[in-house]
Amino acid sequence: MVTTVEAPWSQQEIQSARVLLDRAHQNEIASLLSAVKVKAAGIEDVEELWQLHDFLSAKRHELDGKYDHRQGMLVFVLAQLLKEGRVSAAELTCLATEKQAKIKALARI
Amino acid sequence: MVTTVEAPWSQQEIQSARVLLDRAHQNEIASLLSAVKVKAAGIEDVEELWQLHDFLSAKRHELDGKYDHRQGMLVFVLAQLLKEGRVSAAELTCLATEKQAKIKALARI
Repeated sequence: MVTTVEAPWSQQEIQSARVLLDRAHQNEIASLLSAVKVKAAGIEDVEELWQLHDFLSAKRHELDGKYDHRQGMLVFVLAQLLKEGRVSAAELTCLATEKQAKIKALARI
Repeated sequence: MVTTVEAPWSQQEIQSARVLLDRAHQNEIASLLSAVKVKAAGIEDVEELWQLHDFLSAKRHELDGKYDHRQGMLVFVLAQLLKEGRVSAAELTCLATEKQAKIKALARI
């Protein structure tokens, strides 16, 4: 069961969570740059060019605000990253047990 | 002086103008694809990726409707293409003299 009242975050937990966010963000950007280079190199006609444009529009929209550093958003951001495999359950052990449980529960939704 | 009443277009003129439009369109697309491949290959960070996205947004907007085949739009489209160097004055000689003059006058605006 996921509790609705969240235990306070220690400064250490906040800092650890933000390190996880930053690392995942950098990795996602690096993957995106690689993917775009491959896609662009393979474009053969204007329809494929506009497909790349649509892809970039979607990614820009998705990334805008995804890595929200605000304390109140950390469990949701981490749950999304766990769901996407951008952070691992092992990396969450820097947080208190009930926070890990909440993040894992949200990631299953 | 540009006359406001346009002489009728013959079927031959319409066909010739549309051939010019199609050729210019294909050339512009080919140049755009090459430019995007070069830009994408040189991207080093996410800011440059969003610059490419902005560039594609602008180009897509610009190209949407630029090569309008409707008879009533041909002088305007050809004037724009002449201005951009995508068609030459020599290529316009497939049209009646007064149409060439109108296109050239519009291209100077």
